[in-house]
Parts: sequence; structure tokens; C-alpha cells
Amino acid sequence: MRSIAIYDTTLRDGAQTEGISYTVHDKVLIAKKLDELGVDFIEGGWPGSNPKDMEFFRAMKKTRFKTSRMVAFGSTRRKETTAARDPIVRALVDSGARYVTIFGKSWDLHVRDVLKASLDENLRMIFDTVRFLKSKNLTVFYDAEHFFDGYKSNPDYALKTLIAARDAGAAVVILCDTNGGTITSELVRVITAVKSAVAVDLGIHVHNDNAMAVANSVAAIEAGCVQVQGTINGYGERCGNADLCAIIPSLTLKLGYHCKARSQVKELTEISRYISEVSNMKQQDTQAFVGSSAFAHKAGVHINAMLKNPLTYEHIEPAAVGNTRRFLASELAGKTSILFKARQLSYNLQKNDAHTKKLHKLIQEREYEGYQYEAAEASFELLIKKALKKYKKFFDLEGFRVTVEKRPDNTLISEATIKLRVDNVREHTASEGDGPVNALDSALRKALQDFYPELTKMHLSDFKVRVLDSKSGTAAKVRVFIESQDEKSSWWTVGVSENIIEASWQALVDSIEYKLLKEREEY
Amino acid sequence: MRSIAIYDTTLRDGAQTEGISYTVHDKVLIAKKLDELGVDFIEGGWPGSNPKDMEFFRAMKKTRFKTSRMVAFGSTRRKETTAARDPIVRALVDSGARYVTIFGKSWDLHVRDVLKASLDENLRMIFDTVRFLKSKNLTVFYDAEHFFDGYKSNPDYALKTLIAARDAGAAVVILCDTNGGTITSELVRVITAVKSAVAVDLGIHVHNDNAMAVANSVAAIEAGCVQVQGTINGYGERCGNADLCAIIPSLTLKLGYHCKARSQVKELTEISRYISEVSNMKQQDTQAFVGSSAFAHKAGVHINAMLKNPLTYEHIEPAAVGNTRRFLASELAGKTSILFKARQLSYNLQKNDAHTKKLHKLIQEREYEGYQYEAAEASFELLIKKALKKYKKFFDLEGFRVTVEKRPDNTLISEATIKLRVDNVREHTASEGDGPVNALDSALRKALQDFYPELTKMHLSDFKVRVLDSKSGTAAKVRVFIESQDEKSSWWTVGVSENIIEASWQALVDSIEYKLLKEREEY
Repeated sequence: MRSIAIYDTTLRDGAQTEGISYTVHDKVLIAKKLDELGVDFIEGGWPGSNPKDMEFFRAMKKTRFKTSRMVAFGSTRRKETTAARDPIVRALVDSGARYVTIFGKSWDLHVRDVLKASLDENLRMIFDTVRFLKSKNLTVFYDAEHFFDGYKSNPDYALKTLIAARDAGAAVVILCDTNGGTITSELVRVITAVKSAVAVDLGIHVHNDNAMAVANSVAAIEAGCVQVQGTINGYGERCGNADLCAIIPSLTLKLGYHCKARSQVKELTEISRYISEVSNMKQQDTQAFVGSSAFAHKAGVHINAMLKNPLTYEHIEPAAVGNTRRFLASELAGKTSILFKARQLSYNLQKNDAHTKKLHKLIQEREYEGYQYEAAEASFELLIKKALKKYKKFFDLEGFRVTVEKRPDNTLISEATIKLRVDNVREHTASEGDGPVNALDSALRKALQDFYPELTKMHLSDFKVRVLDSKSGTAAKVRVFIESQDEKSSWWTVGVSENIIEASWQALVDSIEYKLLKEREEY
Repeated sequence: MRSIAIYDTTLRDGAQTEGISYTVHDKVLIAKKLDELGVDFIEGGWPGSNPKDMEFFRAMKKTRFKTSRMVAFGSTRRKETTAARDPIVRALVDSGARYVTIFGKSWDLHVRDVLKASLDENLRMIFDTVRFLKSKNLTVFYDAEHFFDGYKSNPDYALKTLIAARDAGAAVVILCDTNGGTITSELVRVITAVKSAVAVDLGIHVHNDNAMAVANSVAAIEAGCVQVQGTINGYGERCGNADLCAIIPSLTLKLGYHCKARSQVKELTEISRYISEVSNMKQQDTQAFVGSSAFAHKAGVHINAMLKNPLTYEHIEPAAVGNTRRFLASELAGKTSILFKARQLSYNLQKNDAHTKKLHKLIQEREYEGYQYEAAEASFELLIKKALKKYKKFFDLEGFRVTVEKRPDNTLISEATIKLRVDNVREHTASEGDGPVNALDSALRKALQDFYPELTKMHLSDFKVRVLDSKSGTAAKVRVFIESQDEKSSWWTVGVSENIIEASWQALVDSIEYKLLKEREEY
């Protein structure tokens, strides 16, 4: 099959996402990860528009990439000046990037209402800018902004803008569905018409306002485009850009296209999660290919079939994109998934055991109260062990007290005290912390560590809070998830209460008990 | 244009979403809302598979819908019995629904590995079940599960399964992309082949594992299908089903198809949010058409153009689907959006005012610390008013203390005390609550209500917590959003701290100050 180029714009269009705000350091981390993935081009930012992007290109001058090329983004010159004198165009040259992308107007409505220029003037702005950048020995990509809307409004003029860019020396002309509203069939029809009218390599850049960005990108490649632009996790303004995490596996694993990133597709899940972390965005559970639910099976009838043959309810092998299969513990999954999980723990339960029925009922009750075991497998294992009486209590709590005080000088003090017994030895400890849950965590460890020194080897690594019936305001029930890790593994636990301290306490206790049980089973 | 039927399966396939667990009452609320939207068919559940769905159909027998018809879901008979004797088939008849959908196998791999039946036996199971249900005067829809995978594996056999259903009297045969992995071009090619081979009305049912579910559903209608199945908000197993919130406006507003829901498209945003609430799922901000970011503009260059002509960066008018346009306050939007917001508050700032620059810098600093004003416009307004000195302090805090105690008998006590001054009158109050934030809220109102009786007219209506740098575990920074409302409006405020009590305190104080300022401006 044909080779195609993957063009990533996470650092430019992706930075427009509501909730994302990259530092220069974030951008450097993401650029390095994109190079590991092996995208052909990394659009680093718009050096003419803000000092942060200028600083990023300065920082990048020293970096050598294995695979990717850095691209600077900008626009055609303004109408009142020449390309050589326009500071926004000059910033592209000064950025040090050998590849530049400029966007220009293809839609007559934009030329008139936004640029307030004549249609001919706009053609000269496109031609001059591409020609000037070419004269500086740069490879120029031309983004035809709003191309599909422009073509609908005035096809002859829209084509003329592409010809102006091509004649001035643009290497690839990218058709943009900037407003993201084009239906797939129409997009293919327009690309086919452009291909027969203008001899130039075409690229595709689409937004997701219609929820069709991935399908449109793949259809555009099938219609003959040679470059596809998108972002990791579909970040971007409004509904986002086309998600490269879905486009790359569709093109390579399903349609057989070649691209440099092809051999790294099995790292895609890890790369997507890493970039969510740096972007400080939660990864969507339902994200295609890489989301945590993408290969999670809940319906009993699906799980039964999957146990017979995994092809039955999966479109690809999860490992092909670095993801994993999960069977969810839930009332709908019924007893099959309880049996499956129990077997993983080496308990050989049968479907009609009294234990199985009891567990099934217990899980249904807990879920009704707001617990969720799908994302807290350590708490789920503890629940099974308690129900099967394979569990030993490690301590008895007598009570705790947590105080947060805001003093007249505005300082904040969080303190926790705790009373507990281990084998009838009483401990009474106190600790301060960065907030009430941290203080409680710290007091609990202090109380236990003389008895269980292995607890010094684990720490809490993640913490999530979800308000359940949020409509009750501050009296709402909250669900807390805590992730803990030691040198070997990590595990999630859950707690639910109207009181966030109590919910956190439950998850903390589960996390410590899980660790202590795990240690005892390994020896 | 042609008329098409919208078939909703939120209550059946949507219930398979990780994190969703409907009560019968939830299902009744959703069914009523779907009837308001005017979908043609509501698939209520699988009465043969669980008692909850059976109870739902019982509850629905008394309900009269304005537009929608209720459909019961089930499967073909098992191989060892007749349709009349199979309890799963009988449950469909007993459900009281006049419309039933049964799924059967089209993929030879499933027939062999899952049913462990011969290919001919499977054809008889399909024929017998449809024929039996027809004999009970029901309208039968036949879901050809895994049709596209089946057609790829063995096209002749896959077509035979459709013919069996058609010959037995199925009204519509629905081609299902159950594993959600089919590429749009291939899906269209297969539908076209089926249309020329089998004379029967076709429907389409696709999953989103490829991120192409919406595009595939719309392409299927363009290729001649007459019924489209999907769920509100794209709920469903793994990556979800096709999202009707994107399919309905694409088909009606963009392509001109007729359907009963057409006149209610302008209610779509409200319906989507209502169903997220009942499902206890957060609505995705980036959801096409109905998400809160779907018409939110952040890039300065976009906002500038939007102020000239809103067509420039929107694919449809937001009001057409009941959504609203937003301009985001953020470092990237730059000063334009600050000026825009200030003008909404009737302050006539100029781009180069000292005030504008100071505000711009302040917002950048606050965002760096973790505040987010995009979703907390009341806090943003207070920030502007404070910077412009249009703000009066309503009270001075001297301090507070919040205590959570877990006693030996496991009871929990949350208590807050607070000391503050209003015009040099000191108040010292205490209150208990359902958790520490609720106690603090209650003590603060107690302290202020003699001075500001209007506070009794407002209450907190929503509460959200997000852990920011979650990797620091329980010492992480948290961001709290609080929604408050009175009889006229509702407003969001934000607080950020490593201490969840302090973060909640900031949002509480903003919420009360916003209310007090609002009252004073209205008179």
C-alpha cells in the first residue's frame, strides 16, 4: 500500500482545547513523545502569535529528533504589507524550523468579512507568502482554511486559492474542514473534484463538530490525500480535531497503509495516556483503541462468548495498540465475571455455590450504594476474600479525629489523631498533613508501621474524587478512588460516603489491607 | 427528502456502558424524555434476561406515549427447543410490547464457536423465531449481529441469514456492526451489495470502536437504510454506540431527511444533559452538537472573526440544537475575551488600559495556580470587579475550624465553628453537617444571615471536585467547583488548594459574595 505522512498538531491546534494550558516544558515533553511514536511532522506552535511558542522553538533548536520534523505555523501576510516585512511571516523564518505551514483563506465570506480584502488581493497574499518562504529554502505546507465551506460557496474561487499556493511552490496543499461540519460523502466528492482539477499533493485537516473527524480523515486518505493532520486524543477547539490515536491504527492495522509510526502502534495506549497526563486532562474511558473501556466487556452474553473466542466481540487484538482486555464486575455481567475473577485469585467457585450467590448479592448492594468495582479491583478482591473468609483483620480502629483550622493570620493547619489496636496493643498517634486526608493517611501509617514495616515500601500515587448525587450540593455522596504503589505493582481502592473524610478512610484502609495480604501471599 | 425512523437503544445497549446502572425508575424517566424528543422506537430492555427489565415493561404497560413505540429485545430461540417453548422468546410475548427486536447470528465463526450449532440449524433458529413472533401479531425487527464481519468471512451465508428473517416476516432487517470496527467505505460497499441481493427494508446499528459510528450511520442512511439505531450521548459497551445526538441533527439539519424527532432538534442539548444526569454520567464537554464546548471559542483569532460574523467558525447556529455560544476566558484568548466579558458587565475597558493589562496578568497567574474560570463565570466576574475596585467586602473572616470525628461505635460527627466580623460586629457560630464542607457551609450561613437575610433564598445545587496534580496522592492540589442557585438564576464558583476544605471555602465565599453583589445591582 501507499505511504502516507502523519502530521501532528497537538501542540498548536490541540492547545486550543478548553482546559488545556501548556507550559514550554510540557510542550518539550510532548514533542519528545511524538518523536518516539514516529509522527512525520510536529507542528510546534505559532511563533508569531505569542512569546511562549517563540521560546519553545528556541528550546527546540538544540533537540535532535529520531524521526520527526518540527514545523512552525503561521498565516499569510497581512494585506497592508509585503511578506518580507510582515513580522508574523518573519517569525516563521526566525523560528529555525525547516518546515513551515501557513494558513490562508479559501472561503469568499472570510475574505470579505474577516480580512476585508478583495478576492484578488487574497490570492496575491497567498502567492507572495508561499513564494517568500520558499525563497528562504523552507519547505512550505499550505493550509486551505475552511476549504470545504469555501468550495460549497464558490468552487472556482476556492480552487484558485489552491492554485496560487501550488504555483508559488507549496509542497502539499491541505484541505481543511475548519468548522468540522462536513458530511463524509460530501467530503469525498469535493476531494475527488479537487484532485482532477489541481495537480498537487493533497493533505487533510478536519475538526470533529459532526463527530465524523476520524471517518473523514480516513476517507480522505482513501480518496488520495498523502498527508493527514490530527492531534493525540483528538484535542482541539470546540469538539476537537481528528484523533490520531484512532486514525493511525485504522490506516495501518486495517487498511495496510505505510507510515513511519507504523512500528510504534503497539505503544499507542501508553503514548495517549502520557500525553493526557502532561496535558492534565482525563483520558476518555470510551476513547477508541486506547481508552480504558475500549476492550472492557460488561454484558454477560458478551463475556460468555469472549471466554470461548476473543475474536467474537473485539474488532482488533487489544495488544496491537498496547491496550488490555477487561471483564467488568457488575450486576449486568452477572455471575460469570465473579467466577472469572475468583478463578484469577485461585478460588474455584461454581455458578450455583452459596458463596457465589452471596457475593453476587453483596456486589449488587454495594453498587447500589455507589461503590464501583470496575475501577477498583483491589477493593473487589478484598470483598471476595472477606466473603470467602480468606481474610484476616490487621488492626481494630477505635476512632479518629481530623481537624482543619484556618487561623486569623490565614495559615491553615490540618491535623489527624488516630486510636487503634494491633493484637491488643493500643497505638494513639497524631500527624499534620497537606490537607485532612493527607494528615489521616500519615497518622494511620505512623500507628501501623512498627507492626508492619513493609508499609514504608508503599505510597499513595493517585487520588480521585467524584461527587455522586451532585444535586444535593455539599451534602452529596462522594466516591473516592485511591491508587497505591510499591516497587512491584500498583492497585486501586474505593470508598463511598456523604463525608469525604470517611470515604477516603475506607479507600485508605483497603489499600493498606490489600498490601498486607499481598505480602503474605507472596511468601 | 425520504422519511427515516429513529430507533433508540439507550435503555438496552446504553445500559452496557461502564459506570451506568439504571434503576427501573431511571428507565421510566428516560423513556418519557425519549418520547418528548419523538424517537420512533424505544428499545426498553431484554425482558428475558433480567427481572429489572421485566419490571420495567410491566411499569410501561400503563404509559401512553405521544410519539414513540416501545420495543422489547431478545434473541433467536436456543437450538435445543422450539420458539414457542423457549422462555426467552416467550418473555418477549409476555412483555406486552407490540414491537420486538430479536438478534441472531450472521457470522459463521459465531455460529460454530458460540452457538456450537450447524449453519443450517442457525437459519432455522432465525426463521422459526421470527415466524413464531409474527404469529402473535407482533411487528418483528431482526438484528443481524456482526453482519459486516460475517459478510467478510462468508458473504453467501451472511445473506442467507437475512433472507431467512425476511421470508419469516421480519419488517426491517438491521445490519449490525457489533464490534464497531468497520471502515466507512467498506460499510457502504457491503450495504450496496445487500440492497441489490435482498429485497427488504434495511436498518443500521453500529458501535464506535473505530470512532466512526456517527459517520457510518449517516453513510448507511445515504446508502438506502430506512431505520437508524443509536443511543443518547453514544452510551454503550466499550467505546459506545452511535450517538443519536449527532446523527439526528446531521440527518435533519444538514441532509434534509424527515423524521418524527425533527421538530424537537432544538431541545436536543437539554435532552442530552437530562439523560446524562439520570444516568449519573458526566456529559462530555467536547460532545458534538450538545457538549458545553461544542460552540466555545478560545483562540484569539477565532474570537475576533466570530465578533465580525458568527458563521466564520461555527458549522451550525448553536440555538438550532438548543446549545449556546461561549467565549472562553483564558491566556490564549488574550485580551479580546476579557474586554468582551467586561462589556457584558457594562465596564467599557480598552485593549491598552492599565486595568486590562493587570487583569490579563492576574488571570494568567491564577490559571497557572490551577484556577479555571471557563466553568466558573461568577468567580471570574468577582475577579474583574475586584481588579476594577467595583467590589465591597461583606465580612472579615477571623478563622474557622472543621472537625471530623469517627467514634468507637463507628458514628461520624462533622462540626464547623467560624468567627467573623460584619461592620465590626463579631459573630461566632457552630454547626454540624453531613460531612465537613456541609458543616462549614451551614456555619457560615448561620453567621451571616442576620446581616444578609437574602442568603436564606439561595442554596448550593451542585458540587464537583477535581484532583489536579493527582500524582501527589493525598497531598495533591484539588479544584472545587460549586454551583449555587436562587429563584432567578444559578452560578458557578471555583476554589483551589492542597486542602479540600480551603478550596471549598474559597468557592463558598465567592458564591455568597456573588449573590450579595447581584442583589445590590438589581435594585
